[in-house]
Amino acid sequence: MVAICHTILVSKNNDHLDHLMRRGWTRAGEDQADTAILPAHATRWLAARTGLPFRSTPVAPESALVVPESALPPAAYDALCAVLGQQHVHTGRAERLGRAGGLSYLDLLRHRGIGAPPVPDAVLTPADHDAVQRVLEVCATHGVGVVPFGGGTSVVGGVAALRGDKAAVVVLDLCRLNELVSVDPISRLAVFQAGVVAPAAERLLAEHGMTLGHVPQSFERATIGGFAATRSSGQASAGYGRFDDMVEGVRVATPRGEWRLGVAPASAAGPDLRQLVVGSEGAFGVITEVTVRVREAPTVRRYEGFVLDGWDAGVLAVRELAQRRVLADVTRLSDPHETDMAFSLSGGRKTALVRKYLRLRGVLEPCLMILGWEATSAEELALRRRTTLRALRGLRPLSLGRPAGESWRHGRFAGPRQRDALLDKGVCVETLETAAYWKNLGELRTAVRGALVGSLSAPGRTPIVACHISHAYETGASLYFTVLVPRADDDPEGQWRQAKAAACEAIGPLGTVTHHHAVGVDHVPYLPREIGQLGVDVLASVKRTLDPAGVLNPGKLLP
Amino acid sequence: MVAICHTILVSKNNDHLDHLMRRGWTRAGEDQADTAILPAHATRWLAARTGLPFRSTPVAPESALVVPESALPPAAYDALCAVLGQQHVHTGRAERLGRAGGLSYLDLLRHRGIGAPPVPDAVLTPADHDAVQRVLEVCATHGVGVVPFGGGTSVVGGVAALRGDKAAVVVLDLCRLNELVSVDPISRLAVFQAGVVAPAAERLLAEHGMTLGHVPQSFERATIGGFAATRSSGQASAGYGRFDDMVEGVRVATPRGEWRLGVAPASAAGPDLRQLVVGSEGAFGVITEVTVRVREAPTVRRYEGFVLDGWDAGVLAVRELAQRRVLADVTRLSDPHETDMAFSLSGGRKTALVRKYLRLRGVLEPCLMILGWEATSAEELALRRRTTLRALRGLRPLSLGRPAGESWRHGRFAGPRQRDALLDKGVCVETLETAAYWKNLGELRTAVRGALVGSLSAPGRTPIVACHISHAYETGASLYFTVLVPRADDDPEGQWRQAKAAACEAIGPLGTVTHHHAVGVDHVPYLPREIGQLGVDVLASVKRTLDPAGVLNPGKLLP
Repeated sequence: MVAICHTILVSKNNDHLDHLMRRGWTRAGEDQADTAILPAHATRWLAARTGLPFRSTPVAPESALVVPESALPPAAYDALCAVLGQQHVHTGRAERLGRAGGLSYLDLLRHRGIGAPPVPDAVLTPADHDAVQRVLEVCATHGVGVVPFGGGTSVVGGVAALRGDKAAVVVLDLCRLNELVSVDPISRLAVFQAGVVAPAAERLLAEHGMTLGHVPQSFERATIGGFAATRSSGQASAGYGRFDDMVEGVRVATPRGEWRLGVAPASAAGPDLRQLVVGSEGAFGVITEVTVRVREAPTVRRYEGFVLDGWDAGVLAVRELAQRRVLADVTRLSDPHETDMAFSLSGGRKTALVRKYLRLRGVLEPCLMILGWEATSAEELALRRRTTLRALRGLRPLSLGRPAGESWRHGRFAGPRQRDALLDKGVCVETLETAAYWKNLGELRTAVRGALVGSLSAPGRTPIVACHISHAYETGASLYFTVLVPRADDDPEGQWRQAKAAACEAIGPLGTVTHHHAVGVDHVPYLPREIGQLGVDVLASVKRTLDPAGVLNPGKLLP
Repeated sequence: MVAICHTILVSKNNDHLDHLMRRGWTRAGEDQADTAILPAHATRWLAARTGLPFRSTPVAPESALVVPESALPPAAYDALCAVLGQQHVHTGRAERLGRAGGLSYLDLLRHRGIGAPPVPDAVLTPADHDAVQRVLEVCATHGVGVVPFGGGTSVVGGVAALRGDKAAVVVLDLCRLNELVSVDPISRLAVFQAGVVAPAAERLLAEHGMTLGHVPQSFERATIGGFAATRSSGQASAGYGRFDDMVEGVRVATPRGEWRLGVAPASAAGPDLRQLVVGSEGAFGVITEVTVRVREAPTVRRYEGFVLDGWDAGVLAVRELAQRRVLADVTRLSDPHETDMAFSLSGGRKTALVRKYLRLRGVLEPCLMILGWEATSAEELALRRRTTLRALRGLRPLSLGRPAGESWRHGRFAGPRQRDALLDKGVCVETLETAAYWKNLGELRTAVRGALVGSLSAPGRTPIVACHISHAYETGASLYFTVLVPRADDDPEGQWRQAKAAACEAIGPLGTVTHHHAVGVDHVPYLPREIGQLGVDVLASVKRTLDPAGVLNPGKLLP
């Protein structure tokens, strides 16, 4: 691992790599029990609320994990070395373990000694598109599976090094494809290499006065290529668009050669094949460059908190904003459970005052709504804010002011770190998400919540199931669920697998099995339900065309 | 023909069918020389400007057209009759001639005796999805090509009844699939059968206080299914979105069975296959139902005309609006040639006054810009209008006020009728369109204009090549060219074919070969350039999967 990181850190300043020493979010060396991440009062509240016993389950020492020897055939190894140079074909135990899976709860358990991490037979670090292209040709020739790897933040098994029917599998780490290739300020376009991590992308664009505005919770580590491959959405997608809206062009390395798409913002020259590559999760090819639409960087921001009384009132407010097309750039609505959890985990005197204020105002089921605007002038921001708030007039949201909004913004990327700390405390903590048309949204929330609570409740274990809307459209919205429950130590994997399956079954007739987490491995069983057997056949035919040897990301996307 | 129309007109009020008696736009019985469509001063101006001689080339009498006997094998005929009933399997000469091709210049020439119209062997009028499904099964079994047919307004050969490698070809007219299936006012969704023509769709939605807002120039006759199959754009797409933005779901009949897509406004469950069906031009299946996003019907409208001096200034204005995301719902910019043509064809004292005013203001190269806003309240309209105009402040457009805007709106669907009248006068009149990123837009216009002028100029024939932007995006815009030139009677087809080829070659490195007219037959040669050979292979594999016998719309979309 050190060998990889050292070279690249020095030459490319790829500071996300050090995270991969451990398949969790917390930086190596950070204090796991950081009270800023999970203060004592929060742990106490969790214990009282869920029945959590006090214990600690730290990371298993690396030496305790089972890491099989690399099964990469010598001929394939030699061919890869010939293409990349030996220093970019990593077969050491540490390097391979560092690229073993993503960041789902089950992935994190595996790196804590529960279950076996999906360890690749080698990790490759190609320098550019041509090197990726040659790697694919070698792998196709030698029948070696290839898992494209960006930030490694998949929570659905999307980067698990599965062999499928192949004898060996390698991880293709795109960390060296980390350049801003070009910027076209007239057309507001930027071409990024796929391995650029989001913060670096923003830094590079800032030099041109531009921004992408794509801020998923995985922002700190996820890559441009990963966003495209998984149809990512960001916390400010209401303002800046989903990532699929931003993709204007792609350069893809496939076992059959290079494929470039994107000549104009819109076209009627047949189906939009860019939208076939976006969301293809490395199963059709490796996205090596992405042309994205960028915007002028905002100079002013304003985030505010509001409270609506009850889920239905909150949903009505968000729907009103979406259908009047006056959504704030960030528009989020927490259900009463999530609002309660947020207040309880925050704690403190201010929160107590807010709770008291809400009681005095007769609010029975507070639902926290965060609205955030970003603009290039105070005048524009004020105008847009006024337009949003005017649309809400009749619904009378209670304002909690800017502190509540800024508090959310400040902690917006803290979730994954909190998760690491919670895991250490013995909490089963995971998220899942879906989306539906407005008409089905209430029923969907009830059904999924019911499935999760039903599956996870046990003597001494009371789950918390919190939910929010983070992405709203004219015709519907996403629902994002967070689950916390004491871990079932007799079958920790089964505990979550069963709950996840119950939730996916509940989503069934009402919405999509994933709004922005992608298919990966976890959602494969539900794909036929969603796109039909003909849809699956279509995807399979596309895969056969581009990847005849079937080496690309085995076991992902397609059944 | 009468047989078809009578039944349907009575039972379904499908008043678009009577147009099909003649493959032109003008209603049967309308005066071809209608001076409201093409006034005498306009003809005089054209003659002076282009060298047009005075002559008339009316529609050839039906009896003069060569219509081969139906080659539909008797077994196929019997099977189709068994599925649809004999009264919905039309093999008469008039019915078949009425569905022979679309409305391109070459199509119109063919119906005037120049070249042979692509006449199908039968016209089928199924009642619903299931009937379409059964027709496809029969055609696959008997190896008969099937051309889905909505409004028949394709200008790229998209509905030409070509046989490909089949012994016979039938046109599948969707005119009986003309119902609004359902409306969901909560989610703002409407499900339409594919054969609903746009004005009927708007009438049906108006009963629910809703609108689609999709107004291409083919509005009066084009269908919901056709919009989806061709990735249509409307004149108000800046406000209401392109049709591909509106499609939330599709129901498709394929030779391998029914295919339904669309469970949520957005999803990360793999590639967005809706965007593979949208733009598939009947080559993968027959779209029988479309779920569209609808909006509250506007109650106030305001259209205004402005003038900018010079193309570059005009483009800058439109780009500014697009990149600040304050486009009017209708935003159009004519180049100096189109502006001059519009003024000259309008004629009259008012136009003369406008010209004088522009001269007095020192405007050397007037470019007409139309901005139109539509809203559900005067307050909203005023706010949005102010926002748009504020963004233009620095560019100082000259206002021509509401009359210029309303005049454009009033005549917005007149183009096709004028074309019929111009054809009668011996004018070669056609349009083509493209789109590009802003950076390439100037070069693209120059290149295409140069190619068209170069190809069409001849002794005694001076072409008019006019251009406008009708669709603007943050990253680029479309260009729409209108060509008028005296017809070359020695080779009228060759005259246009060569010009079109020259234009398509010129587009090559700079933009897309079609922004909203689709591929049809005409753009097939340019598809590999645009989406790569791998892209063509991908589309071919999808077609093989859904249409193994290759009966769907032979010769369209794919090489």
